[in-house]
Amino acid sequence: MADQPDRARGRFITFEGGEGAGKSTQIRLLAAALEASGREVCLTREPGGSPGAEQIRELLVTGETGRWDALTELLLLYAARRDHVKRLIEPALERGCWVLCDRFADSTMAYQGYGHGLELDRISDLHRIVLGDLKPDLTLVLDLPPETGLARTRTGGEAARRGGEDRFERMELAFHERMREGFRTIATAEPQRVVLVDAARDPSAVTAEVAALVRARLGAEL
Amino acid sequence: MADQPDRARGRFITFEGGEGAGKSTQIRLLAAALEASGREVCLTREPGGSPGAEQIRELLVTGETGRWDALTELLLLYAARRDHVKRLIEPALERGCWVLCDRFADSTMAYQGYGHGLELDRISDLHRIVLGDLKPDLTLVLDLPPETGLARTRTGGEAARRGGEDRFERMELAFHERMREGFRTIATAEPQRVVLVDAARDPSAVTAEVAALVRARLGAEL
Repeated sequence: MADQPDRARGRFITFEGGEGAGKSTQIRLLAAALEASGREVCLTREPGGSPGAEQIRELLVTGETGRWDALTELLLLYAARRDHVKRLIEPALERGCWVLCDRFADSTMAYQGYGHGLELDRISDLHRIVLGDLKPDLTLVLDLPPETGLARTRTGGEAARRGGEDRFERMELAFHERMREGFRTIATAEPQRVVLVDAARDPSAVTAEVAALVRARLGAEL
Repeated sequence: MADQPDRARGRFITFEGGEGAGKSTQIRLLAAALEASGREVCLTREPGGSPGAEQIRELLVTGETGRWDALTELLLLYAARRDHVKRLIEPALERGCWVLCDRFADSTMAYQGYGHGLELDRISDLHRIVLGDLKPDLTLVLDLPPETGLARTRTGGEAARRGGEDRFERMELAFHERMREGFRTIATAEPQRVVLVDAARDPSAVTAEVAALVRARLGAEL
């Protein structure tokens, strides 16, 4: 039988990882399993997630490349994140919801920091100013070699047709490799919060491991 | 005769102060005097000043009160400021322009910090992350008792009709008083950069003092 969920503060779980790792599938499956166990679940994503943050997201995702310099982009991302946390995530946690978020602050560190070379200290200083000590209770990094992830997201054949040899392809791969190393470095530095999940396996094996981790680490009845 | 302006980096002058102090009049008069002396002048204002910053400004000035929490608003202000500095102010200074800006970072400190009670250290930490050591070469604070400034901006009689006694009027006045004290505190802390100009006098006396300060502090041929 489903246990009576307690009225205590909910838990905050984030999914991270590169393109094609299966984040959106796995997060939906975990949401369904938690709901089946009687938990109230709030499924959200970044950038965006609250009305104000979605309006800031519009500034980030529209217009020409190079519209914003790297630090302006970082400030807009953190303005959106602050709104998302204050208007959606914190209130949901306080009323006992389990909040599952597709990408959060570790993506900023991996993408803008490890990927694009913005100083890591600047990003973590900004995080502290904006959100203090707020961190997810559990972060699952769906880890995958970038070649595999990018191949999964491509509508077949383009990379093969271009022979994987042109400069753009190699830059893109090097960038994703740096992001992956960033996530792995974060996981090594914060093993109590961040777990690497091997996402190269069959999706059902990933789903089972995600459920086992949420059970073991957060005491969910899955 | 007009001296040949040197091709060195331009100077960055900001005007600060409360409502009704005459900033926009005085900044235009200074721009005209500098141009008459052969300087290239770039007149700008915050929040906004560059196309990207103006789009962020739209998020700040439209919608309902309380649309953003104080820290989200601060991040949006600094995202706009970063864009303004990188896309307009720095390039203008580098090509030798004298940049005159109606409000800049001291307004954020006075308004969000001293006025609304956001921690001053958080604001200065954010400034350092976003703009490093960038400061104006000269900041002129047009200083005025808030009663005088607010009376100047009002279409006569409303405050008198309400007898200056209702709660909103008093709150508004207290807020502007805190802002004024903020500007005065900044001027005391950074006397080499910030000068208080008594704006309660006849505007022509203010114009003369502004010109004298720009001559004495920055060597302009006015």
